Amino acid sequence: MDERNSALASRLIDEAYVRQGRQSLAQRSRLLRELLACRTVPARGWDEMDVERLLLELSAMDSNNFIGSLGLGEREGRVACPLVRRRHFGLAHGIGRSGDVAAVQPKAAGSSLLVKLANALVLDAVRGCGVRRAASALVLPVATGMAVTMAILTLRAARPAARYVVWPRIDQKACFKAILTAGLEPLSTDKNFAVPVGGSIVFSTSPEAVRSVAQMYPGRASASPVVDIFATLLYQGAAGLAAARAQRKAVHAHLLRALTAWAERHGEAVISAPRNPISIAVTLGAICGGGAAEGAEGATKRATLFGSVLFARGVSGCRVVAPGATKSIGPVRFLGWGAQCDDFPCPYFTAAAAVGLREEDVDAFVSKLDVAVRDYQRLVRRERAQPAASERPAAEEAAVAAGGAAQAVAAALVTEGSS
Amino acid sequence: MDERNSALASRLIDEAYVRQGRQSLAQRSRLLRELLACRTVPARGWDEMDVERLLLELSAMDSNNFIGSLGLGEREGRVACPLVRRRHFGLAHGIGRSGDVAAVQPKAAGSSLLVKLANALVLDAVRGCGVRRAASALVLPVATGMAVTMAILTLRAARPAARYVVWPRIDQKACFKAILTAGLEPLSTDKNFAVPVGGSIVFSTSPEAVRSVAQMYPGRASASPVVDIFATLLYQGAAGLAAARAQRKAVHAHLLRALTAWAERHGEAVISAPRNPISIAVTLGAICGGGAAEGAEGATKRATLFGSVLFARGVSGCRVVAPGATKSIGPVRFLGWGAQCDDFPCPYFTAAAAVGLREEDVDAFVSKLDVAVRDYQRLVRRERAQPAASERPAAEEAAVAAGGAAQAVAAALVTEGSS
Amino acid sequence: MDERNSALASRLIDEAYVRQGRQSLAQRSRLLRELLACRTVPARGWDEMDVERLLLELSAMDSNNFIGSLGLGEREGRVACPLVRRRHFGLAHGIGRSGDVAAVQPKAAGSSLLVKLANALVLDAVRGCGVRRAASALVLPVATGMAVTMAILTLRAARPAARYVVWPRIDQKACFKAILTAGLEPLSTDKNFAVPVGGSIVFSTSPEAVRSVAQMYPGRASASPVVDIFATLLYQGAAGLAAARAQRKAVHAHLLRALTAWAERHGEAVISAPRNPISIAVTLGAICGGGAAEGAEGATKRATLFGSVLFARGVSGCRVVAPGATKSIGPVRFLGWGAQCDDFPCPYFTAAAAVGLREEDVDAFVSKLDVAVRDYQRLVRRERAQPAASERPAAEEAAVAAGGAAQAVAAALVTEGSS
Amino acid sequence: MDERNSALASRLIDEAYVRQGRQSLAQRSRLLRELLACRTVPARGWDEMDVERLLLELSAMDSNNFIGSLGLGEREGRVACPLVRRRHFGLAHGIGRSGDVAAVQPKAAGSSLLVKLANALVLDAVRGCGVRRAASALVLPVATGMAVTMAILTLRAARPAARYVVWPRIDQKACFKAILTAGLEPLSTDKNFAVPVGGSIVFSTSPEAVRSVAQMYPGRASASPVVDIFATLLYQGAAGLAAARAQRKAVHAHLLRALTAWAERHGEAVISAPRNPISIAVTLGAICGGGAAEGAEGATKRATLFGSVLFARGVSGCRVVAPGATKSIGPVRFLGWGAQCDDFPCPYFTAAAAVGLREEDVDAFVSKLDVAVRDYQRLVRRERAQPAASERPAAEEAAVAAGGAAQAVAAALVTEGSS
Repeated sequence: MDERNSALASRLIDEAYVRQGRQSLAQRSRLLRELLACRTVPARGWDEMDVERLLLELSAMDSNNFIGSLGLGEREGRVACPLVRRRHFGLAHGIGRSGDVAAVQPKAAGSSLLVKLANALVLDAVRGCGVRRAASALVLPVATGMAVTMAILTLRAARPAARYVVWPRIDQKACFKAILTAGLEPLSTDKNFAVPVGGSIVFSTSPEAVRSVAQMYPGRASASPVVDIFATLLYQGAAGLAAARAQRKAVHAHLLRALTAWAERHGEAVISAPRNPISIAVTLGAICGGGAAEGAEGATKRATLFGSVLFARGVSGCRVVAPGATKSIGPVRFLGWGAQCDDFPCPYFTAAAAVGLREEDVDAFVSKLDVAVRDYQRLVRRERAQPAASERPAAEEAAVAAGGAAQAVAAALVTEGSS
Repeated sequence: MDERNSALASRLIDEAYVRQGRQSLAQRSRLLRELLACRTVPARGWDEMDVERLLLELSAMDSNNFIGSLGLGEREGRVACPLVRRRHFGLAHGIGRSGDVAAVQPKAAGSSLLVKLANALVLDAVRGCGVRRAASALVLPVATGMAVTMAILTLRAARPAARYVVWPRIDQKACFKAILTAGLEPLSTDKNFAVPVGGSIVFSTSPEAVRSVAQMYPGRASASPVVDIFATLLYQGAAGLAAARAQRKAVHAHLLRALTAWAERHGEAVISAPRNPISIAVTLGAICGGGAAEGAEGATKRATLFGSVLFARGVSGCRVVAPGATKSIGPVRFLGWGAQCDDFPCPYFTAAAAVGLREEDVDAFVSKLDVAVRDYQRLVRRERAQPAASERPAAEEAAVAAGGAAQAVAAALVTEGSS
Repeated sequence: MDERNSALASRLIDEAYVRQGRQSLAQRSRLLRELLACRTVPARGWDEMDVERLLLELSAMDSNNFIGSLGLGEREGRVACPLVRRRHFGLAHGIGRSGDVAAVQPKAAGSSLLVKLANALVLDAVRGCGVRRAASALVLPVATGMAVTMAILTLRAARPAARYVVWPRIDQKACFKAILTAGLEPLSTDKNFAVPVGGSIVFSTSPEAVRSVAQMYPGRASASPVVDIFATLLYQGAAGLAAARAQRKAVHAHLLRALTAWAERHGEAVISAPRNPISIAVTLGAICGGGAAEGAEGATKRATLFGSVLFARGVSGCRVVAPGATKSIGPVRFLGWGAQCDDFPCPYFTAAAAVGLREEDVDAFVSKLDVAVRDYQRLVRRERAQPAASERPAAEEAAVAAGGAAQAVAAALVTEGSS
Repeated sequence: MDERNSALASRLIDEAYVRQGRQSLAQRSRLLRELLACRTVPARGWDEMDVERLLLELSAMDSNNFIGSLGLGEREGRVACPLVRRRHFGLAHGIGRSGDVAAVQPKAAGSSLLVKLANALVLDAVRGCGVRRAASALVLPVATGMAVTMAILTLRAARPAARYVVWPRIDQKACFKAILTAGLEPLSTDKNFAVPVGGSIVFSTSPEAVRSVAQMYPGRASASPVVDIFATLLYQGAAGLAAARAQRKAVHAHLLRALTAWAERHGEAVISAPRNPISIAVTLGAICGGGAAEGAEGATKRATLFGSVLFARGVSGCRVVAPGATKSIGPVRFLGWGAQCDDFPCPYFTAAAAVGLREEDVDAFVSKLDVAVRDYQRLVRRERAQPAASERPAAEEAAVAAGGAAQAVAAALVTEGSS
């Protein structure tokens, strides 16, 4: 609705109303101006439809959406299925080009602008999370594992003679440290910004280091994870991000209180880990410890059973760690796999106060933990009284045969009429 | 992406690419300019995303979408469910205002512009269909029946002393004639422009007549049928509309040829109605005529059975008209209800070559007609051999009890293993 | 994902996972079961995607979406523009049929079911709002004005000899009373359930009365307002509706406190109207009263100016009522139009605490009221000092010429650099 | 709408209609059954809404969409922005897991099923394209470049001692050959199936080779490219894919004829390359050859100018290759970069008949070629007459300064009023 169009519109409806409508459009233009000028997450989140308007505007700037253009190359951004085209807002050219995933694409001005803005916004968000010294950030359209690979490949290119990666084995965080030594830190976008899996953020105090990763990525890539993070940051705004962080902290405190109280009631204890602001671990020694006759193997089995009971009750993501679990990857054998150390003396479970968890979820979780203890104890008693598989009800038997411990538990609970 | 924003964007990506992208946005601006200046269906249909862009732009011009505005009235266009808001593109104020459904709404510049443009485009489309003398058109957000009511109420207001409506009983078209006498013609939007049921077009050679109808409509109304017809006309374009009309004519000719051939094979005939360019009627005298013993009632029953067989074979909209059907509406009793006259001597069916029907549909239809004759004849034979309901298979019986003749037929066919 | 499909899926991924997925689908099936069995607004609102799933499932039950069906009639629910088809979820047959807008459509089982459920849910919601004796409800696909027309037409049909409608002239509510006498009450859907304009709810303690209105509506109608209210009620759930009502009450109390304080500060008063739970009126006698020389006309002019200042500050819906306004509709002349009585002695404004208004909006509104008083006083002083239009700045002049008082005010404020 | 729900629905509308609606839902169930049983591209493409229904059904099988489940882990598939959630149909868990991008995810039964089906459909589509011996296929959520990297990394893992990649330098196709030696062939999804950039297909006659690539991909990945290809294959169906291929061949033949005729008219020739079924090269020796004085450098400059003229006329993807272009990547210097050999004697351009190009596009392209020759010749004449930059019009100068040759050309054309 530029000036000429407004004049024409004024022949159809009162000029005063047209002017009013244009003011509203000018507000949108101003939102975009601020975004382009400041390149920071907007203080206040955008309305969903304004996010969509911008994506459609950027999309119109890509050559595959030019009216009347003739594409005679092999890659012209044509999209066969309208549902697919629509869900990508007509953005079809992807990001980057051969040799640099952060490079501008001549055929795709809109997509290129989107990438630049997304990287700038992500840098601002990373700084807003407390990493003030971050100087450059890059949304890589690959999830964490591949991002770590990219970072290590970058390091290898810089130091062709290097042969070892020092791997401090303290949780998943550990693998990040490997890269931090090179001044790079990849963050998963899904866990941290609540977008679908598929993107990572690589940031560093050194712009060169980030640029090297971008150039290590061979060729074009999906714009999808970039669109997701871009839309999410615009939609949430700085206020929304801060609120999500504050809420996460409050929920973590609530979870810690609630689990401490639960542990006391059941003769268990929260394992102290003051430096971990997300996950909380609680022992299961009293509940799953078992008699001496069964030993470590029995405890492991019972811890697994307890986990299955929780899962059958609709709790996901609550990891039960049994002592003595081992895993081999390639030539290396890990003891106490999944735990932070080789020899923690008893089983425990962890629960995470991730972004998006609410206080009411915590309360529901603790209630389910109580129910799970009762379920678990009934199952253990029953198991002891009735050791032979042949005596189990058919439904439970079928579930066991299907291989799912959780399903076996669920079937057992159903059998007992307690589900 | 106005000039200032472009300058800012040029700091992020090459100015040359920004300029290229702006040219594409300027193309969209030009599309809108043509629309506002010419107020005719665009020669070439718009891309779906361009239609959506325009709807979102118009929506941003409505006061409920102003950023930072404060709505202290009772009607501020708030929408509770995001799915609902989205499917209306944020257009929530409806159309019209108390006293005139075509009036501009001060709070809704975008919606008002949309209404004006939609009415202009519809006038152009009506003219394009051959009604060159139409001088004014109005999309009424009510379907045909209610539109006729509106038109008659308008007439009543103009002639308060009038007491009778002359109703030339020749098909549905008849009811239009009632209004034509007043210089108004309502067209159903769904049948003629392939949009969901809900709108009508009232047009006339007299702008005053149309204005009177608009003013007869008391207050605001749903914008939904207007959005539908507006989006459809932009999307199809004049070329698309012309192609749809041409294709409909070609399919009508194909249907006439195919039904004539089918009728010859079965000893039936196409009923000549050269002035009806849409529907074709074919006699069912030989197929459903029955013996003298059964009389008219038997023929009616059998014609209904034939219709049910067709329906069970997945044919809808093919109306079987039995002689002697009667219907009472209020104090009036109609003989030969559904037929064009009271005393057509034998049953017949009609099939319409409506907009959207394809030649391959016609071919499939004629094949199904053949199958239906066989199905029908087997059922009649069976009926004669086995008159008592008590001997019917249970599935068929249940279907009859459920009240659906078609279902009874379907069940019977299934029973015979022939479906 | 029925049993056979699950078995096939188990060849691709573990049976245990398939079973888990099916449990989730069974949850959706249960949601629908509850809806069909209870026909009440669900206690807890549905997820948006579940609402959409149900709409797509209902749509698949309409004949226009049958795979392989052949439509040979004139009205087969074909939709030309995919954007239009999508926004209606493929529901194209509208609701009702000739003679009854609440009737089931044989060609559209899904749409028919949707209508029945929507009417049941709306009845439940109306009861939940306190109208416990409501026995039947109907969503009419027309906005309030037309719904009142329908109700009055229904009354006329019942009492053909009646010639007068007693019209208690106390606000818009008044017009409802006309219908209440017949045991019918139409409620606007947009104001009360925050959906786009286009639907009304007619309810009564007498199912027959509602049925009569349904049968008065001639023929089919748009399903769009029904889809909107249906989706909204499912999405909000009873808890959401109750929360919206509670929040509205709280905001009303907050608005009353804030306006009382504001009135005291400015020598004005809140006009007591304890039976109006939505709108609040505040006198403007001290602010707009003016000198004796100007009389009532001056006060009216100044009240209009004050309203324009508010509008220019982005406040909409805040109605300023000037004494002495008159309006003629047909042969009748109303004194004090817009006011509740003919002779309220001074101008006043009203503000409504409608569903969706937030406490922060109220605070922002009161701040803007303060600013508006200052703006207004400056403009009045300026007006007095500079009576001749010829001396006004060009921008203001142009705005006045364009006919918009609000725009003139806006231009004046801009001229003074105070906007 | 299972049996119990149907029974409940029958209390609201006729059982016969419910049954009819259920038949339609059963058709959808059958579509899915065929898909799960045959795992091939459906013979006839699905309706867009059926594709969406299936995606929503699969999404409901992922744990993040379970009703009432409690996610206590760090990765629970929460999505902050509704627009993002919607465009992914609620699919948030990505695909694969640590150690295998093709592995089933316990938390995401729906996504896992989608991946398995997508890979099966893609294998079927690859076979349908003529690669009958393909035994396994995998959609990698990375574009071609990264897919080649993955393949080479896989090879390196298999042969740790290998140090060289033999690189047959014949076009892009060349790089594939490097991988073919290992029995793998990656195809770009965007070029071949008209989806947005972001995915590749790796297929082989050896399932083990494909499995190795899947296991080389470290961890989870975006499901987005998989969703795109899955939706596209369902939507197009085998018939749609075959039609696209046939149409591409026909358009290629048309392009060859049209370019041959154009070349004859201008004293140029099509460069024979019978084994390239997509791109066609045409010499530009006569048009851009230039006088002896200017030599190769002049020809290169003029070929670039000709390319810019084409681009300014809205032709994209038509590559002009100038003799003598060189490029260095790392330590290697390529002569005749972009050409198939080092020493082709004159400039030429290429045009590709890619999937989606239409005959009318070809005709428009050839018209633009004619116009471009005239534009180009005028510019060359002008250049010769007016060698000093200082004499150029300002607009053209600005464009040159902005760095874009195409823009300079566009500005020049505008200056001359010929655009």
